[in-house]
Amino acid sequence: MTYEALFEHIQQKQSYLCVGLDTDLRKVPAHLHREPDPIFAFNRQIIDATADYCVAYKPNVAFYEALGPRGWESLQKTVEYIPKTYFTIADAKRGDIGNTSGLYARTFFDASSSGLDFDAVTVAPYMGRDSVTPFLDFEGKWVILLALTSNVGSDDFQRLPTPEGTLYEQVLRTSQTWAGPDRLMYVVGATQADALQQIRQLVPEHFLLVPGVGAQGGSLEEVSRYGMNRSCGLLVNASRSIIYASAGPDFAEKARQEAQVLQLEMARYLEKYLG
Amino acid sequence: MTYEALFEHIQQKQSYLCVGLDTDLRKVPAHLHREPDPIFAFNRQIIDATADYCVAYKPNVAFYEALGPRGWESLQKTVEYIPKTYFTIADAKRGDIGNTSGLYARTFFDASSSGLDFDAVTVAPYMGRDSVTPFLDFEGKWVILLALTSNVGSDDFQRLPTPEGTLYEQVLRTSQTWAGPDRLMYVVGATQADALQQIRQLVPEHFLLVPGVGAQGGSLEEVSRYGMNRSCGLLVNASRSIIYASAGPDFAEKARQEAQVLQLEMARYLEKYLG
Repeated sequence: MTYEALFEHIQQKQSYLCVGLDTDLRKVPAHLHREPDPIFAFNRQIIDATADYCVAYKPNVAFYEALGPRGWESLQKTVEYIPKTYFTIADAKRGDIGNTSGLYARTFFDASSSGLDFDAVTVAPYMGRDSVTPFLDFEGKWVILLALTSNVGSDDFQRLPTPEGTLYEQVLRTSQTWAGPDRLMYVVGATQADALQQIRQLVPEHFLLVPGVGAQGGSLEEVSRYGMNRSCGLLVNASRSIIYASAGPDFAEKARQEAQVLQLEMARYLEKYLG
Repeated sequence: MTYEALFEHIQQKQSYLCVGLDTDLRKVPAHLHREPDPIFAFNRQIIDATADYCVAYKPNVAFYEALGPRGWESLQKTVEYIPKTYFTIADAKRGDIGNTSGLYARTFFDASSSGLDFDAVTVAPYMGRDSVTPFLDFEGKWVILLALTSNVGSDDFQRLPTPEGTLYEQVLRTSQTWAGPDRLMYVVGATQADALQQIRQLVPEHFLLVPGVGAQGGSLEEVSRYGMNRSCGLLVNASRSIIYASAGPDFAEKARQEAQVLQLEMARYLEKYLG
């Protein structure tokens, strides 16, 4: 998917919501456990219920691979089921030496190899340039690089001072020499709204994938005020607050309501902050 | 596996060789493609051929997951096949927020969930403490944290100056407050021998997993001279130079010879440098 197509979808939907498919078998409502593939049955209903209010879906790969081969099958079916107009993100936090990153790229981008065909994958920057660029060898696919994450541990290393700003600022600076805003996005946690203005100065055009609204406590209003650019430039992810809004047979309806609440809020911010 | 059991195995074998199972379907000899699971057929023969000369096996998870669910099945069979006396490492470079890292830990450590039961997993440090400690909640299992990797991109961020040394030194310092040398190892590339003396001052007791000997050009002699401690403290990995020593039907025999050459060299260094 192109930068322009993504922005167009955002304008059309009046939403920059990404629904996180962190689907935990232990939290799938009881009645779905009778299905041949409860994870996929759950995801399918979540996708149907939320599609009107979001522009992206982000399966968290850990939840699938923890179940072994059958988890990967659920992931395949899920990605196949998502309509092509939605931006799909494999939240996998991969990254290794060049030839290995090339194989991770095949995992998420080459359906003929792995059965998966995502638009984007999240990548950890620690190993540097040659751990990231193999993902960019796949035409039209995106890397979403970790910059400043939403967890407490982000203080341990990401905010360490280096000669030219903190480590995450250095990641933003250096990685821009690897690809432009048409192929590269950054992860910035919603709990880090204080840093967003500064981040926008460093990466004015890039999309930011922002997890941490909802269960993790980040503010959608602050993220939108400080993070939005003239192409919106934000994909705000909510996972647990949507997909586990109810543990009962009404889980999909409740998920739809939660997604709608966020979309309506986003429509207001698009009106107000789209620069 | 305990620190002591690992050292005992090293003394018994006079080897600190880890065989990297970076098994690429495209490089598996032609005659094995008739097998129902060519990857596993290849690995089984490599394991049989090299077991006399090594103490650890390290499947590179990217090579398996690039093949989708059937790749995970090959990985399961491979890990099951390795005798329990060998230290098994899932080279996966994972790391995410706490609840997600907990699921990655189940992937590699909880056979009842994923079918996999490794001794250790490689983890990227960028997201900090709460991305690493969930792996340590599994009793007796190990985290092998990236410190200074073997690739060119290690210069991009790992060697950046921070107030207390370079970033990788800070990773070594900070992570020691999370676990001791009985649960934590570090990845230090063999191409980084110049930094090994300094690293040994910071982490005198820990095992280091050292990739980059062989195909990547690191020197086993230098790694051993500067890296060995009184419990050996080294697992030196070779992948391509062993498993692809021949592309023909004699691949296992050639792999055995390559592994033996490294083991004989290691026996000399154990004699010379075991401090």
